Amino acid sequence: MSAAPSQGRVGDPLYLDCDTGIDDALALAQLVAARADLVGVGSVSGNLAAAGGARNTLDLLAMLGRADVPVAVGAHDPLVGSFRGGAPFVHGENGIGGVRLPRAGEPVAGSAAELLVRLAREHAGSLRVLAVGPLTNLALALRLEPDLPSLVQDVVVMGGAALAPGNISAVAEANIGNDPEAAAVVLDADWPVTVVGLDVTMRARFEDEHRRALAAADGAVPRALAAMLEVYFEYYTPILGRPSCALHDPLAAAVATGQVVPTLAPVVPLEVDSTDGPGRGQTIADLRSRFVGHPAQPGARHRVVLDVPDGFGDVLLASLLTLP
Amino acid sequence: MSAAPSQGRVGDPLYLDCDTGIDDALALAQLVAARADLVGVGSVSGNLAAAGGARNTLDLLAMLGRADVPVAVGAHDPLVGSFRGGAPFVHGENGIGGVRLPRAGEPVAGSAAELLVRLAREHAGSLRVLAVGPLTNLALALRLEPDLPSLVQDVVVMGGAALAPGNISAVAEANIGNDPEAAAVVLDADWPVTVVGLDVTMRARFEDEHRRALAAADGAVPRALAAMLEVYFEYYTPILGRPSCALHDPLAAAVATGQVVPTLAPVVPLEVDSTDGPGRGQTIADLRSRFVGHPAQPGARHRVVLDVPDGFGDVLLASLLTLP
Repeated sequence: MSAAPSQGRVGDPLYLDCDTGIDDALALAQLVAARADLVGVGSVSGNLAAAGGARNTLDLLAMLGRADVPVAVGAHDPLVGSFRGGAPFVHGENGIGGVRLPRAGEPVAGSAAELLVRLAREHAGSLRVLAVGPLTNLALALRLEPDLPSLVQDVVVMGGAALAPGNISAVAEANIGNDPEAAAVVLDADWPVTVVGLDVTMRARFEDEHRRALAAADGAVPRALAAMLEVYFEYYTPILGRPSCALHDPLAAAVATGQVVPTLAPVVPLEVDSTDGPGRGQTIADLRSRFVGHPAQPGARHRVVLDVPDGFGDVLLASLLTLP
Repeated sequence: MSAAPSQGRVGDPLYLDCDTGIDDALALAQLVAARADLVGVGSVSGNLAAAGGARNTLDLLAMLGRADVPVAVGAHDPLVGSFRGGAPFVHGENGIGGVRLPRAGEPVAGSAAELLVRLAREHAGSLRVLAVGPLTNLALALRLEPDLPSLVQDVVVMGGAALAPGNISAVAEANIGNDPEAAAVVLDADWPVTVVGLDVTMRARFEDEHRRALAAADGAVPRALAAMLEVYFEYYTPILGRPSCALHDPLAAAVATGQVVPTLAPVVPLEVDSTDGPGRGQTIADLRSRFVGHPAQPGARHRVVLDVPDGFGDVLLASLLTLP
């Protein structure tokens, strides 16, 4: 598949792979607010263990009126090594800032990889995949069904950093860095991939005013999200220098649905550092042609988002305020 | 040595390590124009073989009226592996764009590493080192004299890329990438290092008007440099999208002499990727604290130049036009 990745649109069936996580929760809420045709969700260990991420996803989907969406528990461990406990210092012990949601529903039988393969066959050629956690489940699905790339329309990944610094090392972003081997498999597969990384997500922010507006809303969902954000803000405030947070997963979701149209997103060669060196987990995008506008490069299939319009926090807030 | 690296100044004895090279030639000319106290030069394989770089250096020093400066031939091969032929497609077959300079002088006996060690002992505590080629000679000097860091005031390196793309790979800059093992030794040594990399050198430019002004000068040196630049421009014009070139080594020289004072140069942890992975040769600077102004980090000794004032091309031109 040599065509450039497709633009985001909201009408196509969408599989979400996530590690819910506070910004995953925002993204999930936003997808429902945007009326995305969410046909299934898989969880993966990342911000917290896969089982806990599925729990949070099920509970939130029920609050969002989408208890119909099947949720599968995905990989607990990365392809190589073991899950190392996630990021409770970012997302709280239960992954959603200690907020207790009404417990609702159970995961479907089978793994997230199996769910993804089943949905890809059911929606052959039209399924879109949005991955906002480590790429373990997608790599496992590619093992289960080597023809997966021909069944999937395109993949949008929140992950990596092209020119921006990393967040779990000087150069590695957490989703890629927590399973570089899986990321390498997924990025090497022959499907169009759009990568939404720290270059743009660290600049997409909720400020304190956004959080307070959510907290003052009538809906239970906005208020729950505002409560989660208190913990997320605690982590980000010293990093960003003021009460605020980065909107990683929501920005990727908005790119997937077309709510945000990138203003700079060249299609360039991209590879993952899966060595054990200091660059482990880095996404290496070849941006050497930047001075001449990133002309098309033969064989490149990765659309790397480098710039988006300002003001995503306002867009996201308006969307979330429509929720029950 | 935990103090922050010193600011550049022109009065201290300076050892230059280079691979002359068209932009090395500009830097050498500029150092003489700035009346730097050049006490010795070593050559290293990089843009061309070390012997050829020494030849170009000797010939140019003679034209500059500085035939008194000792020049030593340095390492032909990197610490690991063999010299791979340099970059004749950038610098021409003889390293200086095919320009034939009057042949003058001979190298001193002994290696560049030996010359550096001797000069460091002679000027203990005051010698400054400017390295604008691969860091092989500096690494060898550290082997010869483990106390070298205590004898040297500071080191300025043209090399690496912190947030900008590389030039010999997506992430590796040529000086570091041509001998990552040496770079790791030099950057790990306990001396203050200022790194002037592609983040700033790709934005420091000679435009066609600068080259033409040099070509129209009375002096033989400016005219010779202008002739060299024709070849250098041929390489850079398609990369930069217009007739122009990057001023890598001259910018590093100007930072070393204080002619250019960086406007953003945090002291941050820095390491070199010396794996055999896709990141080989990358300088990995930890810039995660960028949103809060890069506060001092315990143990950090590397000043990474991220911004300099605009207009370096004009500054360099004015300097070179004073030459004979």
